[in-house]
Amino acid sequence: MASTFESSIDALIASHKPGYALAQPFYNDPQVFQRDIARIFTKQWSFAGHVSRIKNQGDYFLFTIGDESIIVIRGKDGEVNALFNVCRHRGSRVCVEAEGNKKALVCPYHAWTYTTDGSLSSAPAMLDGFDASQFGMRKCDVHIVEGLIFVRLDASTPRPPDSDAAFADLERLFKPYRFASAKIAASLVWRVRGNWKLVVENFGECYHCRPTHPEYCSVMAHATPDTYKAPRAVEEFGKLKSEWEPRSKALGFEIGNSESPLHYVGRLPIKEGFLTQSRDGKPVAPLMGDLKEYDGGYTSMRIYPLNYCIASADHGLIPRFTPIGPELTEVEMIWLVKSDAVEGRDYDVAKLTWLWKVTTDQDKTLVDNNQAGVNSLAYRPGPYAKTEQGLTRFTTWYLAQIA
Amino acid sequence: MASTFESSIDALIASHKPGYALAQPFYNDPQVFQRDIARIFTKQWSFAGHVSRIKNQGDYFLFTIGDESIIVIRGKDGEVNALFNVCRHRGSRVCVEAEGNKKALVCPYHAWTYTTDGSLSSAPAMLDGFDASQFGMRKCDVHIVEGLIFVRLDASTPRPPDSDAAFADLERLFKPYRFASAKIAASLVWRVRGNWKLVVENFGECYHCRPTHPEYCSVMAHATPDTYKAPRAVEEFGKLKSEWEPRSKALGFEIGNSESPLHYVGRLPIKEGFLTQSRDGKPVAPLMGDLKEYDGGYTSMRIYPLNYCIASADHGLIPRFTPIGPELTEVEMIWLVKSDAVEGRDYDVAKLTWLWKVTTDQDKTLVDNNQAGVNSLAYRPGPYAKTEQGLTRFTTWYLAQIA
Amino acid sequence: MASTFESSIDALIASHKPGYALAQPFYNDPQVFQRDIARIFTKQWSFAGHVSRIKNQGDYFLFTIGDESIIVIRGKDGEVNALFNVCRHRGSRVCVEAEGNKKALVCPYHAWTYTTDGSLSSAPAMLDGFDASQFGMRKCDVHIVEGLIFVRLDASTPRPPDSDAAFADLERLFKPYRFASAKIAASLVWRVRGNWKLVVENFGECYHCRPTHPEYCSVMAHATPDTYKAPRAVEEFGKLKSEWEPRSKALGFEIGNSESPLHYVGRLPIKEGFLTQSRDGKPVAPLMGDLKEYDGGYTSMRIYPLNYCIASADHGLIPRFTPIGPELTEVEMIWLVKSDAVEGRDYDVAKLTWLWKVTTDQDKTLVDNNQAGVNSLAYRPGPYAKTEQGLTRFTTWYLAQIA
Repeated sequence: MASTFESSIDALIASHKPGYALAQPFYNDPQVFQRDIARIFTKQWSFAGHVSRIKNQGDYFLFTIGDESIIVIRGKDGEVNALFNVCRHRGSRVCVEAEGNKKALVCPYHAWTYTTDGSLSSAPAMLDGFDASQFGMRKCDVHIVEGLIFVRLDASTPRPPDSDAAFADLERLFKPYRFASAKIAASLVWRVRGNWKLVVENFGECYHCRPTHPEYCSVMAHATPDTYKAPRAVEEFGKLKSEWEPRSKALGFEIGNSESPLHYVGRLPIKEGFLTQSRDGKPVAPLMGDLKEYDGGYTSMRIYPLNYCIASADHGLIPRFTPIGPELTEVEMIWLVKSDAVEGRDYDVAKLTWLWKVTTDQDKTLVDNNQAGVNSLAYRPGPYAKTEQGLTRFTTWYLAQIA
Repeated sequence: MASTFESSIDALIASHKPGYALAQPFYNDPQVFQRDIARIFTKQWSFAGHVSRIKNQGDYFLFTIGDESIIVIRGKDGEVNALFNVCRHRGSRVCVEAEGNKKALVCPYHAWTYTTDGSLSSAPAMLDGFDASQFGMRKCDVHIVEGLIFVRLDASTPRPPDSDAAFADLERLFKPYRFASAKIAASLVWRVRGNWKLVVENFGECYHCRPTHPEYCSVMAHATPDTYKAPRAVEEFGKLKSEWEPRSKALGFEIGNSESPLHYVGRLPIKEGFLTQSRDGKPVAPLMGDLKEYDGGYTSMRIYPLNYCIASADHGLIPRFTPIGPELTEVEMIWLVKSDAVEGRDYDVAKLTWLWKVTTDQDKTLVDNNQAGVNSLAYRPGPYAKTEQGLTRFTTWYLAQIA
Repeated sequence: MASTFESSIDALIASHKPGYALAQPFYNDPQVFQRDIARIFTKQWSFAGHVSRIKNQGDYFLFTIGDESIIVIRGKDGEVNALFNVCRHRGSRVCVEAEGNKKALVCPYHAWTYTTDGSLSSAPAMLDGFDASQFGMRKCDVHIVEGLIFVRLDASTPRPPDSDAAFADLERLFKPYRFASAKIAASLVWRVRGNWKLVVENFGECYHCRPTHPEYCSVMAHATPDTYKAPRAVEEFGKLKSEWEPRSKALGFEIGNSESPLHYVGRLPIKEGFLTQSRDGKPVAPLMGDLKEYDGGYTSMRIYPLNYCIASADHGLIPRFTPIGPELTEVEMIWLVKSDAVEGRDYDVAKLTWLWKVTTDQDKTLVDNNQAGVNSLAYRPGPYAKTEQGLTRFTTWYLAQIA
């Protein structure tokens, strides 16, 4: 059965028109979804969480992706391990609480016991010849950069070629914010009724900003220009950028704007007069990390397939997109602030989360409606606009991964 | 994968025993359901709604069938268009409210804008060479007869051979009721846990009336005769019919009883002493259209696959059966009355809807139980009874369509 | 399509490692589930219910397994019939209430009428040549032993070779309890989110008792020994057994411990000082059947695939495991007491049900977690422990059935 399907998906890949959206099955077929998990999410990096969730030895949280549950746990030597939450005996979940602290990982079924690095330390009453060293929990590849824990499910596959460059860029541009020592001030979760690629496409272009995100457009200068209607707006953003860049550099920021097939990292000005991504542009929390001054810019990064991060001078925003099923994606937004900031005194959660809460509410509705239409017999992939060319890069990359 | 399935469904069609119900997969297999949509509902006529729902230019409502959403909208010249509710850019639903009024159809995602006839009038920021004339919304075939809007999803396929005759018959016999100028007095919706063909079969025979529909049998003379137990009852209905027919003709009604592979239209008497399809046979609303008198008859029509209409002298009843999934069908019953009738004064909704509300409640339970049993390993198609021979015609037609 | 699947399941069977759990598809694939129903549950015995539910002629209850509904009804001559609840006309469910009393089985759709042995006695208005004798309801194979009604869906297949021996053993060892004249004192139902084989495996080993069932371990001596940690505990259970056995035999009990590929029947002591399976070991109901004295033992039996029964001196416990879907199993626990026992005076339901209620609550959680982990990409079947060797027998038997 697999082979027939595989040939039909190969035909779909071959018939893809570059610069156009994907064909329907890529957005709703359960077998394509399984292939996405198997060929992309097992091999590529996924942001799992922030280090502040597991400060102490034995602290853990569960990271979910598709049907997979991964235990992200701080081990004895302080290292972070990511272990498939599956007992090697008969397959039970080992950890059932979403987070906690464990000296050892004891399967709740038959008490097989693993150390925090996944080694099997006790399996009572096994037959002679049983070799415990062959039954450790399956480990994922882990990389931590600036406090962000990235996981690759299948540690036996090589890291994507561009990984090192992406992480180096991330580290270089985000360093001043000191995310590793920040704390989580808030997080919100949405269940979007859409395939993860519709979520990626939504997040990857601002062609829809003007018709759908008035709040975002009121804060972000780059969202203002209607390149088609008002060339003057493009000029204005160019002017803003060229005035802001030397000012920002003078404050010690790197501008970056480094891009590869796998990642993008760079800095841009927010909006004339805006110090941070807030309703009125005024600060919403104390300056992050080493920063001494607001420069009116923000740093953002993207690493394929689903990793994003945005830093304003006084807070960070980490979106976490998790594929759950062919037409279901979980979206979490996590806000970071300086670790010693005190809620109520130094920041107000409603003000801090305002921009991305209202924007994500809107995006959820857009993607829900997008999925419904894509499921139609009448759906035909259409061409991307000028301001959607990032999606052409994404779909090209995507199809190469699953080919 | 498709090819293996196709040969197995062809084998099922080949092994069908005429005069018997269909084999299990025709009633519950998701792939058969997809084929039903693709080979029947795209090509055949479906009743979408009554013209009174879209009186003014820009008025629209959404018509749903399977996963499809169709925008039925009155355009600039007063013509009615039926457009797939799918943006040609990236596939978003264009209309998200079930009904309303639109001067233009603006996609809520990126503001691609269509006229009410589906032409793309604005798509900002597209790359050079983009030809808007190639990206109109996909249009369905539309035909309106006596105020009933019929839609065929795939306008590129030829109309079914018998279409013209069916619509002509419908027009001829229903003309006196003037449905086009009537108004909707009430509508009710049921979600039936059964395949659409089980719903058709249920609606297409009265073999089950005596055991299950005491109210219907108390109103409708044709439902009384137990042709098997009481030949006298058949005689009686024959006598009633022969007495009623000249009386009805004298009042200007055509009797009709025209039938083709695709449709049936005809008139029959209700019951001795009954003026309309009501509990006591007394009027429940003002006379429809041009009618000056009650003749004690009713007109009914059926056009395959799922279109029905019943007219009593003082009201109309339009059942709307919509396939939603392999084992789920939506049933809507719509009651029409003369447009100037006033609720409370001229008609009472409870009295008007009594017969078909109680009957459809019963039918829903019958079909739910039918589906449950059909799903069993022990299910084998059984033979139709004498009074179910209309189902033989239907299943023969159905299998020819999907072969 | 079937053929491709069949070869892939055959490959899975061929690659099974004896002594290990099953591969993932056996626990979650819908097509494997269908094969389980078709090749195991149609041919093997399933406990359907206790005779006290249908004391009188015409009494019936519905027995559900997968999508199948079976009418278990006491017929005119007092015999028990098991009939597929599917009308031979168009497949409707014939009985829709979960239990009741029927003189005849009248299909609620078109009133086809069957006798209590499934013969079609009336089908009005059929075409000439219709032969009612060809349209009886499909009957299952039925065997009743000690009041337990067992059903095989496909009566046309031979009984499993070991059936007679299994039922004879059951009868011999359970006779003193007189289950046939007992009454149901209580029953409880759980919906377990796991494949039926995970439920079987859970019920079939006590390797998990110590980590998960403190209450069960406090009552049942056999659950105490940690064969790996405390060889002394094994010795102690051996000592208890050898002291108890002659005492039990002196009271007229057979010890049994008979085993075949299909079944096990035997007796064991409960725990030093315990008269019955209760919290404190004290009686919870009057002595069953012919018993005059407590011997401190209990009788248990298992017949593949899913039949179990446990008798203490003063009550019986019948677990009923019903596959509903690939990842869903219904568990019912039924408690029997002597028929003339009076609730409140002779027994207290909370005390009677305590042990198996708390234990089944725990088992439900264990199996839910087991299924979740088995669904992971990282799941690999692990080896059974010494005290799980019964599972090796079960999986070997299972794979032979579906091969």
